[in-house]
Amino acid sequence: MSPDWIAVDWGTSNLRVWAMGPAGVLDHASSDEGMGKLSRDGFEPALLRLIGPWLSDGATPVIACGMVGSRQGWAEAPYRAVPCTPVAPGALLRVLTADPRIAVQIAPGLSQASPADVMRGEETQIAGALALLPNFDGVLCLPGTHSKWAHISAGEVVSFQTYMTGELFALLSSQSVLRHGMAGDGWDEAAFLQGFDDAYARPEKISARLFSLRAEGLLAGLSADAARPRLSGLMIGIELAAAKPYWLGQRVVLIGADRLCDNYTRALAQLGLTAQRLDATACTLSGLATARGALKKVLP
Amino acid sequence: MSPDWIAVDWGTSNLRVWAMGPAGVLDHASSDEGMGKLSRDGFEPALLRLIGPWLSDGATPVIACGMVGSRQGWAEAPYRAVPCTPVAPGALLRVLTADPRIAVQIAPGLSQASPADVMRGEETQIAGALALLPNFDGVLCLPGTHSKWAHISAGEVVSFQTYMTGELFALLSSQSVLRHGMAGDGWDEAAFLQGFDDAYARPEKISARLFSLRAEGLLAGLSADAARPRLSGLMIGIELAAAKPYWLGQRVVLIGADRLCDNYTRALAQLGLTAQRLDATACTLSGLATARGALKKVLP
Repeated sequence: MSPDWIAVDWGTSNLRVWAMGPAGVLDHASSDEGMGKLSRDGFEPALLRLIGPWLSDGATPVIACGMVGSRQGWAEAPYRAVPCTPVAPGALLRVLTADPRIAVQIAPGLSQASPADVMRGEETQIAGALALLPNFDGVLCLPGTHSKWAHISAGEVVSFQTYMTGELFALLSSQSVLRHGMAGDGWDEAAFLQGFDDAYARPEKISARLFSLRAEGLLAGLSADAARPRLSGLMIGIELAAAKPYWLGQRVVLIGADRLCDNYTRALAQLGLTAQRLDATACTLSGLATARGALKKVLP
Repeated sequence: MSPDWIAVDWGTSNLRVWAMGPAGVLDHASSDEGMGKLSRDGFEPALLRLIGPWLSDGATPVIACGMVGSRQGWAEAPYRAVPCTPVAPGALLRVLTADPRIAVQIAPGLSQASPADVMRGEETQIAGALALLPNFDGVLCLPGTHSKWAHISAGEVVSFQTYMTGELFALLSSQSVLRHGMAGDGWDEAAFLQGFDDAYARPEKISARLFSLRAEGLLAGLSADAARPRLSGLMIGIELAAAKPYWLGQRVVLIGADRLCDNYTRALAQLGLTAQRLDATACTLSGLATARGALKKVLP
């Protein structure tokens, strides 16, 4: 098995690789050697541990996206400023390697001057979404640790906005005083919708609503199965309240983990919106393929 | 030195004790043996380590407030429901001790059914404030990990509301992605006021504003001396936006740590309010003395 090229999604926490052939994915592998765990000289060995079995004598192209291109990553790929296409011919950063069997290139992230914002990795998913949805004009929402909303027009990212929704949920549910009432896996859907409605209607009350979760646990026996989804609803509620200029009157497409996108789908439905869904991995692979296609044009 | 009684402020993180004589404080001591570090049978030894030198043969009254009275504390002192006086004759919880030289009583916290809310410790500071400001009608603000606002009328707490301001600041500045741009001690006052104004004017945008701190650090070299005060301003801004029904048209008195109250004073000044200040420790001691006075009436 000798792939044409290797696709790499290298985030803060995880490393995922795919051996790509003419007809698509030949093989895949992953590890927890994300950017956050590696020093600069740890990236090449971490990559080779996963893709070594796929390599032959010639230099196999490797196209990577994500935090691997950040200042704390393997090599810093300077942001490209919006408005611009999500990936661009000639903008990939070539990384020198000790091993001659790989030719590594990193897709840069996008930046926006005002309001100041950045993304790394999502630009590749956006490129993939535009490959999967030709002539798309509208809004892409990529829920996650740092949820991104992007206005797309004529193949370009016109503007985008990041919300700390997922990170706030993780910190509050596992590190704050609210953690005492959050253990468990149950999901009370009515509690999710209540949290969403409360926060969407009165977003300014968020830090009081948060403490109410603790107080209701103490006074009224609020269960973890209700507290967790309500916290999730609160966080998504303030995001959708702030993102209204993005979604209002627009076609919205969600890209992300299934369960998270389920929550956003139901939240958007509360606002009368029917969101389309795209598979996040399919978007990543299509985006990396788009980047590689662009690469072909600029390198002989 | 033989005190008439011993005042105890026992929170989650710290234990502070004062030997009280007829004319006030005779001595004081403190340790980091807060409620959070102790199991149920660790409270009496932790207390005796600090107050042992003050004890004589008779049983010295010990009046304690704070998280020592929570479910995870020494003994659970059930909440009293508002509207009510902040401390009440006969409502102190007697704790049995192995050592006959102390007679320990814990002041219960307050609860509110709707919106669900609780406090432990602040009720004693509120009682102290009312002792220091006779016939006070208006609003008390107690900034901190969990900031409290309380409507006071005719000597009673009519209603109150808790905001997770301090805990959110701590989590975001030390545990989130924002921690990368937060190290240092400098304080750019203009950045504080900018954060406050932004959040107060558009509180629903809070989770986008948060990520902007990170993006401005990456793109525009935002310094830690500006990022920390701006985060503080953002957190206080959403609190004051939500607390408007409390402060609007009211006399506002702040009780808390000096530097924190400085920030609230300047934030309230942006809204045209001149806040009065009370020393937090003076309020705690006055409140515990009020509780002890009440105790005198109900115990022979």
